[in-house]
Amino acid sequence: MERTEIQELGEFALISRLTKDLKKNSPSTLLGVGDDAAVIDPMGKKVVVTTDMLVEGVHFDLSYAPLKHLGYKAVIANLSDVCAMNAKPTQIVIGLGISNRFSVEALEELYGGIKTACELYKVDLVGGDTTTSPSGLTISITAIGLVDADAIVTRGGAKAGDLLVVTGDLGSAYMGLQILEREKEVFKEAPTAQPELTDHSYILERQLKPEARTDIIIELADLGIKPTSMIDISDGLASECFHLMAASGLGIRVYEEKLPIDPKTYDTAREFNLDPTVCMLSGGEDYELLFTVSQDDFEKMRNHPKLSIIGHMTEDAKEHIMVTKSGQDVELKAQGWDGLKG
Amino acid sequence: MERTEIQELGEFALISRLTKDLKKNSPSTLLGVGDDAAVIDPMGKKVVVTTDMLVEGVHFDLSYAPLKHLGYKAVIANLSDVCAMNAKPTQIVIGLGISNRFSVEALEELYGGIKTACELYKVDLVGGDTTTSPSGLTISITAIGLVDADAIVTRGGAKAGDLLVVTGDLGSAYMGLQILEREKEVFKEAPTAQPELTDHSYILERQLKPEARTDIIIELADLGIKPTSMIDISDGLASECFHLMAASGLGIRVYEEKLPIDPKTYDTAREFNLDPTVCMLSGGEDYELLFTVSQDDFEKMRNHPKLSIIGHMTEDAKEHIMVTKSGQDVELKAQGWDGLKG
Repeated sequence: MERTEIQELGEFALISRLTKDLKKNSPSTLLGVGDDAAVIDPMGKKVVVTTDMLVEGVHFDLSYAPLKHLGYKAVIANLSDVCAMNAKPTQIVIGLGISNRFSVEALEELYGGIKTACELYKVDLVGGDTTTSPSGLTISITAIGLVDADAIVTRGGAKAGDLLVVTGDLGSAYMGLQILEREKEVFKEAPTAQPELTDHSYILERQLKPEARTDIIIELADLGIKPTSMIDISDGLASECFHLMAASGLGIRVYEEKLPIDPKTYDTAREFNLDPTVCMLSGGEDYELLFTVSQDDFEKMRNHPKLSIIGHMTEDAKEHIMVTKSGQDVELKAQGWDGLKG
Repeated sequence: MERTEIQELGEFALISRLTKDLKKNSPSTLLGVGDDAAVIDPMGKKVVVTTDMLVEGVHFDLSYAPLKHLGYKAVIANLSDVCAMNAKPTQIVIGLGISNRFSVEALEELYGGIKTACELYKVDLVGGDTTTSPSGLTISITAIGLVDADAIVTRGGAKAGDLLVVTGDLGSAYMGLQILEREKEVFKEAPTAQPELTDHSYILERQLKPEARTDIIIELADLGIKPTSMIDISDGLASECFHLMAASGLGIRVYEEKLPIDPKTYDTAREFNLDPTVCMLSGGEDYELLFTVSQDDFEKMRNHPKLSIIGHMTEDAKEHIMVTKSGQDVELKAQGWDGLKG
């Protein structure tokens, strides 16, 4: 493996190496990397902007998250926030703080993942700042998106009786993390053991290479559905439910039997002695969308394969109930990660 | 001094404490902090976006840069990049990575500086991400601005014969840093000694509390001048000259006697045994604007108190000359910080 030190290149040569083969993916990009700022044509729409900072040792562990996947996932987390406004992501800018532990080749891996995400989602990397850091890796991404003024959806705006809808399935990203952590422990004790990862490809992909639901934004528009409120699921379903409640001043009822889980994720949770429902409620990093729609839209979306109606909003702002499979009302709770075990 | 630990509050309470008294400064802000993303109305203009990452121990030293000044300066550095596109800054988003060395009160200091800059420049803080970090403080700022399509100025676009113009004066920020470093050394050896800072208020302010030249963007528009190329001075005049040359494929001639320096900065450089011209060429952090204008615009700007015509662009892309006060042609050079001493 070749190893080029970052200081051999210097800042300007490094940036030009990392950004040399950038293609233009979005027609709204007028000027990309290479000037004091990028220039974007909003094309008659409103502009959404969101930012995220990921810190090594806090948000990721490079002993099991390859740099390419990390770059990909860091972009996705931001695109997901853009989707949550019912907007289409169009550009990102990236700030990187890197210690001298990382070679130029390692950064190229990271950028490889970033560029792959950009190409797949038709988003342009239009700017950045790369700097040394005394320790570890810090990734700061800001994503920009465009949305028609009358299509903007915030966290607030739900009405009592509105249906609560979630996309895809939940809990897999969290179970993927459990598998990776288990294999890391096995590796520490027996470095020559073969990792048992092959059975878990979907679950691992949900953790290492999640997707942003830009497809849902397009499909909802095609169906003529405008959600009354929306958020993306980064911290776990329960926590996001509380955000929607707080922003609309309403209560919520969620039905356990309606929560979507992949069968393999269910089995793996059981194998790890975890409650699959708790994994869905508190696992996080699913990057699915959680939104409310008027009951009038029910017919437009019933039996849609990507959407699950999991509950509804209620008048009483203090109500946050999960109806269990056995029909009991229990308190909907967001458990910390420690609370998930056992 | 009160000290509240960050973990006592938790992420959501911390953010709401830091952002509780945000005022809306820009009419283009439709939705600020508190949702998955902010929403901006581009008001018929194009959008510029730029990002910067500042890392403790690399870009700042908290032993002499108070947190409030640091927050202010971090914003200014980004607004200056927006100005360099001939645009008006309107919004910022902030990512913060903070170790547990910092208290909530310390973060409030930092945010105090950020908010002061926002209010003064009529810019809105519309989003952010605050996270723990294993060590030190990392500040990532992305700034957004608006500009009419026909007013955009890039680094490229100068023609041979265009006049080279710089705003304000140069070298003071670098001399401010020298004074602060000297006082830090004095303090280390004799902690009870009174710091000798009072004589240097302008120079210190240029280092600790620089300004972005939004005033120049407005005045140029009022004068009917559109620069043919522009950049802001963050790394020192010489380095920025090279960027303008490279982007336009032209050479440059700069006249030493035309370079603007504050008399006190000149004297202080001499006192430190530094060449004042080298401080101007290589000091950096001035956040002044360097731009080119057509000779046809000369009459509109002659004798403007904020503008100095310091040279012109030439046909030969390999030419980068400084004409000394004694009339000699010498090579225009960007020296590293180590090269400045002596």
